[in-house]
Amino acid sequence: TLAAPAIAQSNPQITWRLASSFPKSLDTIYGGAEVMSKMVEEASDGNFKIQVFAAGEIVPGLQVADAVMNGTVEACHTVGYYFWGKDPTWALGAAVPFSLNARGMNAWHYHGGGIELYNEFLGKQGLYGLPGGNTGAQMGGWFRKEISTVEDLKGLKMRVGGFAGKVMEKLGLVPQQIAGGDIYPALEKGTIDATEWVGPYDDEKLGFYKVAPYYYYPGWWEGGPTVHFMFSKEKMESLPKQYQQLLHTASQAADADMLQKYDMKNPKALKTLVANGTQLRAFSPEIMQACFKAANEVYSEMEANNAEFAKIWGSIKDFRKDWFTWEQLAEFNYDYFMMSEANKGEL
Amino acid sequence: TLAAPAIAQSNPQITWRLASSFPKSLDTIYGGAEVMSKMVEEASDGNFKIQVFAAGEIVPGLQVADAVMNGTVEACHTVGYYFWGKDPTWALGAAVPFSLNARGMNAWHYHGGGIELYNEFLGKQGLYGLPGGNTGAQMGGWFRKEISTVEDLKGLKMRVGGFAGKVMEKLGLVPQQIAGGDIYPALEKGTIDATEWVGPYDDEKLGFYKVAPYYYYPGWWEGGPTVHFMFSKEKMESLPKQYQQLLHTASQAADADMLQKYDMKNPKALKTLVANGTQLRAFSPEIMQACFKAANEVYSEMEANNAEFAKIWGSIKDFRKDWFTWEQLAEFNYDYFMMSEANKGEL
Repeated sequence: TLAAPAIAQSNPQITWRLASSFPKSLDTIYGGAEVMSKMVEEASDGNFKIQVFAAGEIVPGLQVADAVMNGTVEACHTVGYYFWGKDPTWALGAAVPFSLNARGMNAWHYHGGGIELYNEFLGKQGLYGLPGGNTGAQMGGWFRKEISTVEDLKGLKMRVGGFAGKVMEKLGLVPQQIAGGDIYPALEKGTIDATEWVGPYDDEKLGFYKVAPYYYYPGWWEGGPTVHFMFSKEKMESLPKQYQQLLHTASQAADADMLQKYDMKNPKALKTLVANGTQLRAFSPEIMQACFKAANEVYSEMEANNAEFAKIWGSIKDFRKDWFTWEQLAEFNYDYFMMSEANKGEL
Repeated sequence: TLAAPAIAQSNPQITWRLASSFPKSLDTIYGGAEVMSKMVEEASDGNFKIQVFAAGEIVPGLQVADAVMNGTVEACHTVGYYFWGKDPTWALGAAVPFSLNARGMNAWHYHGGGIELYNEFLGKQGLYGLPGGNTGAQMGGWFRKEISTVEDLKGLKMRVGGFAGKVMEKLGLVPQQIAGGDIYPALEKGTIDATEWVGPYDDEKLGFYKVAPYYYYPGWWEGGPTVHFMFSKEKMESLPKQYQQLLHTASQAADADMLQKYDMKNPKALKTLVANGTQLRAFSPEIMQACFKAANEVYSEMEANNAEFAKIWGSIKDFRKDWFTWEQLAEFNYDYFMMSEANKGEL
């Protein structure tokens, strides 16, 4: 027999495992990893496979970054702020209260040095992260009773993602950490008074409108959260160059795709929720101002004690000022006109 | 010598040529094709090359779709509305007055059937199109004198892209078709009274602020225009499957990347323009209402006479109503709060 001919194998066969923080039932956010995996597999002619596992299948949803760090899996799909308890810097690549909106985060990540800055931090944990989805500005969540003043927040037990809870604590709210599947019964029994998740499409599936009729906006703690693909830095660097590039391209495409999917699905779900009795409420200006003040106090403390946090948050803040100044010209005035015509029944 | 071994070549060597409608000097919009080309080349290990030619290098900027249709090149990077004179349906995949904004267009293209509907139309011209960039809501352009009323538009000579000109004609404006490089001298000499292009980053390079100080917003004719990659349908279908998939993935990534780049560059450019004396002005509510009414008249005429236009515009309109209803909850209120804080100097 002949020896194998000396032809470089352009697309070597590689299989990776990716652990998701999300359940399969949430097809938009869980689906982002499947979208990316499919893109990679098809563009490599079936040779680079990334197997996606839902939360709990091989790793609990909130331990997926650790699973990459300890070598259990090569990649995960998660939100950086889940790990803010290790260090608040984790949250900055994802979302913190009163940060950028989705387009602002995307501009900062891809062309404002965000990907590089966040990876200076992630690299020390043995990770390499790329944006892998966005939900757009989230809703502020479901409340069993109306809340109008800061006083109404005092003692309120609310299921809310980590970092934002720290800000809310300053206002007397009692944040609760509850895994996705346990939220509904807790809300139904009154063990908690309120919960937030994402927006109409996901929230309708989770059924919160049946037990907490007041649906508040905006979710000031998630103006445009970035979901991330986090890869083992070592395994990423040992891939053939073309696969590394393919991961970048597929991640950027899947990142965009998640927001596109939410944006198509949320408007219809909102109509269904309202038809089912959901009461829409805006947070009062008093509450918004108090939360903004509390958030800034938290940031000042963290900046004083954490140089890495201060560096990345400084970069976001610099752009944030310019972004929200520019956005109020063409974008805001176009949208404002169109929204007004929608409300007049002219669209 | 041995014959070549019978090993399937996973990544065959292919070289395509792509004609851009844009000059190299506009690095965001011209750059979109280079971004896509680089993604494809790198992910195929250098085997699938797409050579990008700027407007005029091998094909004039406004004839690139024809060049794909007649087989001169395999692909182009352009904006569908450049060809609305052939049939107004061309414009619908890109932008028409008072249509969706950038996020709305993206949702519609990728998850609302937009890509498929537009390709039903493009396929008849032998093309296959994929979104390949977006500028975000554009500015309304540069005017030598202030305009406050609809009366002020009468007789005004303005360089403006095709379809919008048809709407403006109804209000007495005289639209002018002028190629990019000739706009500045025409504006300087007073041959035209006004011009529009994109937004601060591009417009600053083109220097319009030096000869027309009033910079209006919003560009109601381009709330979120989609730039397209258009491929020869036949050549696309004859590619190996993995290259077809790679073109889809790279196009979606490059599509997102262009908006991300504009969003990072526009805010800084706006500050420079204002420092150089640019006067920002909003179109008056009277003008906006008159333009909206004129646009709706144009649409009614086209829908009555063009079934293909009516079908696609109907699909956009259905979603437009729901989109601008949903957007005014979390997204609008979040942005409004942040813009207010920006204006108070609190960011």
